[in-house]
Amino acid sequence: MNTKEMMAYEKVKPFLMQARYGIEKESQRVTLAGDLVQTDHPASVGNRSFHPYIQTDFSESQLELITPVTESVDEVLAYLEAIHDVAQRSMSKEEMMWPFSMPPALPEKEEAIHIAKLERHADVLYRRYLAREYGKRKQMVSGIHFNFEYGLDLIKQLFLAQTEEASMENFKTRLYMKIARNFLRYRWLLTYLFGASPLSEARYFEDEDRPKEPVRSIRTSHYGYVNKPDVQVSYATLTRYSEDLAENVAKGRLSEEKEFYAPIRMRGGKKVADLFHTGIRYVELRNIDLNPFDRVGIDADEIAFIHLFMLYLLWTDEKLAADEWVAEGNDISDAVSMEHPAKPTAYLAEGKMIFSEMLEMMSELELEGVDLLKRYETWLDHPEETLAARILALDEKEGQAAVAVELGRQFYDQAWAHPYQLAGFKEMELSTQNLLFDAIQKGIETEVLDRQDQFVKLQHGEHQELVKNGNMTSKDTYIAPLLMENKTVTKIMLARAGFRVPDGETFGTMAEAKKAYPRFAQKAFVIKPKSTNYGLGITIFKGETSIADFNSGLSIAFAEDDEIIIEEFLPGTEYRFFVIDNQVKAVLLRIPANVIGDGEQTIEELVAEKNADPLRGNNHRSPLEKLQLGELEQLMLKEQGLKINSVPKKDQQVFLRENSNVSTGGDSIDVTDEMHDSYKDLAVKAVAVLGARISGIDLIIPNMDKPYETAEDYGIIEANFNPMMHMHIYPYIGKSRRLTTDVLRFLYPEMTI
Amino acid sequence: MNTKEMMAYEKVKPFLMQARYGIEKESQRVTLAGDLVQTDHPASVGNRSFHPYIQTDFSESQLELITPVTESVDEVLAYLEAIHDVAQRSMSKEEMMWPFSMPPALPEKEEAIHIAKLERHADVLYRRYLAREYGKRKQMVSGIHFNFEYGLDLIKQLFLAQTEEASMENFKTRLYMKIARNFLRYRWLLTYLFGASPLSEARYFEDEDRPKEPVRSIRTSHYGYVNKPDVQVSYATLTRYSEDLAENVAKGRLSEEKEFYAPIRMRGGKKVADLFHTGIRYVELRNIDLNPFDRVGIDADEIAFIHLFMLYLLWTDEKLAADEWVAEGNDISDAVSMEHPAKPTAYLAEGKMIFSEMLEMMSELELEGVDLLKRYETWLDHPEETLAARILALDEKEGQAAVAVELGRQFYDQAWAHPYQLAGFKEMELSTQNLLFDAIQKGIETEVLDRQDQFVKLQHGEHQELVKNGNMTSKDTYIAPLLMENKTVTKIMLARAGFRVPDGETFGTMAEAKKAYPRFAQKAFVIKPKSTNYGLGITIFKGETSIADFNSGLSIAFAEDDEIIIEEFLPGTEYRFFVIDNQVKAVLLRIPANVIGDGEQTIEELVAEKNADPLRGNNHRSPLEKLQLGELEQLMLKEQGLKINSVPKKDQQVFLRENSNVSTGGDSIDVTDEMHDSYKDLAVKAVAVLGARISGIDLIIPNMDKPYETAEDYGIIEANFNPMMHMHIYPYIGKSRRLTTDVLRFLYPEMTI
Repeated sequence: MNTKEMMAYEKVKPFLMQARYGIEKESQRVTLAGDLVQTDHPASVGNRSFHPYIQTDFSESQLELITPVTESVDEVLAYLEAIHDVAQRSMSKEEMMWPFSMPPALPEKEEAIHIAKLERHADVLYRRYLAREYGKRKQMVSGIHFNFEYGLDLIKQLFLAQTEEASMENFKTRLYMKIARNFLRYRWLLTYLFGASPLSEARYFEDEDRPKEPVRSIRTSHYGYVNKPDVQVSYATLTRYSEDLAENVAKGRLSEEKEFYAPIRMRGGKKVADLFHTGIRYVELRNIDLNPFDRVGIDADEIAFIHLFMLYLLWTDEKLAADEWVAEGNDISDAVSMEHPAKPTAYLAEGKMIFSEMLEMMSELELEGVDLLKRYETWLDHPEETLAARILALDEKEGQAAVAVELGRQFYDQAWAHPYQLAGFKEMELSTQNLLFDAIQKGIETEVLDRQDQFVKLQHGEHQELVKNGNMTSKDTYIAPLLMENKTVTKIMLARAGFRVPDGETFGTMAEAKKAYPRFAQKAFVIKPKSTNYGLGITIFKGETSIADFNSGLSIAFAEDDEIIIEEFLPGTEYRFFVIDNQVKAVLLRIPANVIGDGEQTIEELVAEKNADPLRGNNHRSPLEKLQLGELEQLMLKEQGLKINSVPKKDQQVFLRENSNVSTGGDSIDVTDEMHDSYKDLAVKAVAVLGARISGIDLIIPNMDKPYETAEDYGIIEANFNPMMHMHIYPYIGKSRRLTTDVLRFLYPEMTI
Repeated sequence: MNTKEMMAYEKVKPFLMQARYGIEKESQRVTLAGDLVQTDHPASVGNRSFHPYIQTDFSESQLELITPVTESVDEVLAYLEAIHDVAQRSMSKEEMMWPFSMPPALPEKEEAIHIAKLERHADVLYRRYLAREYGKRKQMVSGIHFNFEYGLDLIKQLFLAQTEEASMENFKTRLYMKIARNFLRYRWLLTYLFGASPLSEARYFEDEDRPKEPVRSIRTSHYGYVNKPDVQVSYATLTRYSEDLAENVAKGRLSEEKEFYAPIRMRGGKKVADLFHTGIRYVELRNIDLNPFDRVGIDADEIAFIHLFMLYLLWTDEKLAADEWVAEGNDISDAVSMEHPAKPTAYLAEGKMIFSEMLEMMSELELEGVDLLKRYETWLDHPEETLAARILALDEKEGQAAVAVELGRQFYDQAWAHPYQLAGFKEMELSTQNLLFDAIQKGIETEVLDRQDQFVKLQHGEHQELVKNGNMTSKDTYIAPLLMENKTVTKIMLARAGFRVPDGETFGTMAEAKKAYPRFAQKAFVIKPKSTNYGLGITIFKGETSIADFNSGLSIAFAEDDEIIIEEFLPGTEYRFFVIDNQVKAVLLRIPANVIGDGEQTIEELVAEKNADPLRGNNHRSPLEKLQLGELEQLMLKEQGLKINSVPKKDQQVFLRENSNVSTGGDSIDVTDEMHDSYKDLAVKAVAVLGARISGIDLIIPNMDKPYETAEDYGIIEANFNPMMHMHIYPYIGKSRRLTTDVLRFLYPEMTI
């Protein structure tokens, strides 16, 4: 089969870069000082027995982060970044992830290395067996498992480009077996470039059988976590491979298939034998050390290189019979692993040949990425650029452990800098980021179907849910949000159900507005232009208004706008009640943008101080907005006889805005616990009348401590069908209310969240 | 109690015109020739045992139309118009409503007058009793019952303006009793102005005891349907009234209370005795003849006059003791009823006094409507203006029956002229008008909560539903329409579920678009500017496209727009499948605006001919749009070598548009029965995948007769979350599919619709 020719076919070429990716990444949890933790797997992370993203590997301290399978490098990294954020922020604030493949200094006693506390007894038994067979220390090494699948269209077009194999399944198997052999033969190049375990920390090795000098990769060398030498498996055919594996198990050299720690695994079914009917669907590359300079252990360039490398393995012919070819590769791999990181490799010539052939392939197949390839090629002559050499250089300056703590701490800080954001999805709405965070944390499979549209798919078992904007779900009906959107109809429905709503209407002509007098004459009400501009044109009437005064109020308002609003005036404070599934989950008070004087600083300085809060940002990228000192704010100050350089007295609260929106710098204050239950009852009942399950309903309440007795004690302003959630999750003052978790609980009552 | 003073109080005045209205209107069903029908109550009208709007009165032929209670004259008339439309269009096309209070010529044999076939046996027994007691013929008269309630705020303010009555209930009762007495005393004025039963038709009177000359109102005279003279009831107090009624029943003079046919009834509870605890809530005026010149039997001016008249009854003092006052009124009423319509009334002076006092009241209370009042005042000196006189004048020319047929036919034509519209709600969307029609017809209580927003409330028993735009309901979830709105996510979900959707994407740069080559190279696809302008910049590729051709297609498209779309091209015809509750209720083919030649007329003439179809209109006010001959159409013709004055050959179909939208003059063709079931299955399943219950899903199908076998046999273009319904209900060609009824069936499975 001439894959070089096949890949160059016009029908094949468009699909060459088509692939799917998945990453598993292990990390040891350590204290901020770099000591291995003795704590349990974080409790806030959902159940390990089904968690798709955050598991434990051998030991209780060893996180295993697993991305979903994606069709682009950007996506796979986005998920890995996100899962990383979730894992870090689910851990104790005293813990972080150790950035190296080689573990930190291990405990003196093996008992202090705790086997992962898994639910399934078989899983625990297997780990106990491994501990006995290989020792616990060897199991503490971490790495990347990179799952790679050639695109289905690519495989299909390659299949059509040949005639030797009549069966698609056989063709795929043959292709992947070739890939596996070539990978085993040439994998040393990955170790040369990305090997990153030059040194061990204390007590990884128990005896003197250890590298005497720094190496490129302890992990991929025979000092790493490898099978005993008597375990030999042929890659000549899938049948041979499978038979050999079975024999090793039969002879007791392996307890089961999965104990075979090959640098590449053929994947498709649950067991190797399944591959005969499922076919090989993808391969798992297991020889990739953690890149400690990237917080997720691998970067886009490395993945891009691996992708091209995988194409090269498909393209290039094997030069020896299968078993010899693989054996040669194994020898070279171990030799390169054991080389000194700062020295050139003994296989420099072969390395240059591989790069030269890869570049030839790129040119023939018109592939992009030549610059990237040329950059890595220079590392052959500059071993100091390789990851292992860079680590070694840092180790010589300050010691590997100190470097690990420094890097780990840096990644820790990144994860905690903006806890309201989720790496990989930062351009999405905050509430969707929070929901994604929670879903990943709780082990609900998440998929962003449309980033711009904030459209997310959740899945747990067979139970699928779609969510938009964090709280638009299948739990509400189509008509309920339409009802809430229509303020007039909302008021009609609430009023008929006996709730107090401010009577109000918009008018386009003086004549029509005048007719409204009877409706308002006896009440307190306000006449205002429809578009209010800094309070101009507003008149408030306190009740028993004469027609003359009413008409004069209309004239004042109509002087400012073509349309005016007359609305009953409800005295009191406005609170946002966030109702989910007939329960008030949060109550928020929003107060207009303001600063509180200290008797020393100017208003401008106080604003700058308040804006330094990391929760404050711009354009809804943060839970709170920065205070402005624009035209409106300065007008507002002027009305109070103040300027931006005035110095307010100590504890004097100076308001910069009339409106209390968080989006114009307002403060959000959680008052969920302070609000009298009787008002929560009202909010729940009102939302039920609207037929809504998730709603943010705004009530005016004069006195939230005093229980509700009469209609005078409250008024309902409006109900919102897509209420902001992050202002409750990250209030300026008061307790955080994790509404996104409540949404997930509502969607997945069958889960313990 | 000085009501004149009370009404003039500043706090009362704003509320003087506040009132609620409800109308009941009876009509005999007749053939288009004016003969009383022998048919049953229309079957398409929902069950009479609960129907809120369309009932039968005494006889099976006598419709009783009932409006809901409203707070404005416009509204009550809108509902009456609508109910009228529904009633007329629910009847056989051979039947219409007799526009007069006096029935058409009655059958010779009383047996041919059928008592209403009601479900409840008690109702039938009562009608049999009435037939025995009064004779069937007398029962055949029709009229308006006008329910009137003073506004609650008005009553409240009046109550606060006095001190005599400490209890609000007693106050209301006292007020309404005064109204009743004054009404009885002065009601003759309504008979003078609006009395409209001057003549009887054959066999209404069986003997010679009948008016010898035309009168103002047979119906309100002692020849009308009145109690026997021994039934006497005092209106002095509610207690007296109630006691007298009870006595009449006890003595057997009345079978039950409701047999008391007073011109005014105090309403509130189910029985008079209930009024003692419910209070009188409103009054029912029963002496109003059908105004045959208005299709609903009463017009806005008449209602406006009655409203002012009711205020006058409140305002003016009684001038005699209660019983005398009422007795005097009864005498005058009968006398005026019996006057010759064309002659001045004997009570001209009192009439002028009433008008003069009413005008005085209007001036004192600053009420609007003086012009209206002055117009009716002139009728006192011009009896020929009164309704009875106008009928008589017509009768003298052509005979009353001929006039009745002429007027009835005119109203019949109005009801049928635009059967897709609903009188009273014509400015609403057509689909909402259709839904309202169906709901009224089937006896579901309907209320339009917001006309502009097409927001409707439906109610049957305790079961309430809100509907917007005719098909946005509680049956769909919040997320399903959001999913359908997002075309990208829709395609993802459908493709994953195994449905065929055209692969496609929008691109903003040449570089990005070029990368898409692999996705499309092997398929048939189209490259087009995002905004297509008369087909410029579009290239269609039929499969196996070279990169060079692909890139050239991109350049052509980018020359027309900054954004381009590349989309898989699915050959075939597009059909709209309308799915409700997992069933395909309609399938529609839409074809672009076109005319078919006859070998004689020019294109312009053919267009004019096609536009004459009453189903075609402008701006979505009709099920189909008029064809245009604008720039686009003329360009399209030019491309075919035609002009607007070209004469197409016989049967030559000339297309004026590329797009098939009904909104640009396209034809809608129902193909529900022609479409192979296998595609309906697909549509149902696809809509289910989207989690939607109501959706219009568009499929491309090359051959709708051939059953679906492979993915090549169809493609899904998009699913619509608020699909137009009226184009299925009124297709250009093919069977009407009453989707609005299907929506109601879906909402109210407990009803038999």
